[in-house]
Amino acid sequence: MTRTSLEKHSCSLARSVDVLGDKWTLMLIRDAFYGVSTFSQFKARLGVAPTVLVERLGLLCEHGVFERVQGRPDVDRFHYKLTDKGRDLFPILIGFMQWGDKWIFGKGQEPIRILDKATRSPVQPIAVQARDGHVVDFREVTFEVGPGMDDAYIQRLRTKSAS
Amino acid sequence: MTRTSLEKHSCSLARSVDVLGDKWTLMLIRDAFYGVSTFSQFKARLGVAPTVLVERLGLLCEHGVFERVQGRPDVDRFHYKLTDKGRDLFPILIGFMQWGDKWIFGKGQEPIRILDKATRSPVQPIAVQARDGHVVDFREVTFEVGPGMDDAYIQRLRTKSAS
Repeated sequence: MTRTSLEKHSCSLARSVDVLGDKWTLMLIRDAFYGVSTFSQFKARLGVAPTVLVERLGLLCEHGVFERVQGRPDVDRFHYKLTDKGRDLFPILIGFMQWGDKWIFGKGQEPIRILDKATRSPVQPIAVQARDGHVVDFREVTFEVGPGMDDAYIQRLRTKSAS
Repeated sequence: MTRTSLEKHSCSLARSVDVLGDKWTLMLIRDAFYGVSTFSQFKARLGVAPTVLVERLGLLCEHGVFERVQGRPDVDRFHYKLTDKGRDLFPILIGFMQWGDKWIFGKGQEPIRILDKATRSPVQPIAVQARDGHVVDFREVTFEVGPGMDDAYIQRLRTKSAS
């Protein structure tokens, strides 16, 4: 997995997917939410090659999505735990689950139901909401240059997309 | 990009990221939301190798996220358009943008602002919400075997994660 290609993009989506846009990375984050934490557990659940697993866990730690914590001192075993930065990915993972439920398995064929513990009711589909809470679709949203934009980047995009 | 590895998972997240868990795939979907539609535009904006671009666009069409439509008959050029299935990824893409805004660029350094067109106010951060609308975090959510679960799969996961 090369990671340098998107690092110069002045776009949060590009920079996020540069770190997270990999199926094994996303599966590791999924399993971390399920409470999986050791190398051998991740390996057994995902059936992923050890070299791939070492690299992905390393990247997740390097980017502060996971932290590596020492387990019991008498056991040579680390635990990989989600940081706050990692836990903040929860809505995105739920979004992927809901998308697969709807478009891959189909309504009524969900392999896993996502419930609010308190009421046992399904959670709502994730959605983009305006300040007053109403759901907006992509046609109702606009993008504007923000304070962190690199001017050269936006210029380059404008030129390129006009070509 | 191998795609067979996660195809047997009875998990919507696994199946979704098997299709979407790739940085170029997610960047192509981003650009499609920005209105980019031709091979040469995607190539110029992303600087991605043509072979990679051909493969990713092919996969997106195969999985029904993009559809390939013929442009003007006198121009040998196809347009790649988001389908309903593709447009339904909008909240996930916004989620990646917001995560990068918060954790990579940092508050006040967002390169791009995401606004509700009607009010020019920023949209809300995507979140998982219970039926009554209150935001729930991962500790308040539980997963339950659903109607489409393959029993062998859940058994395997249980065995593996206990090991």
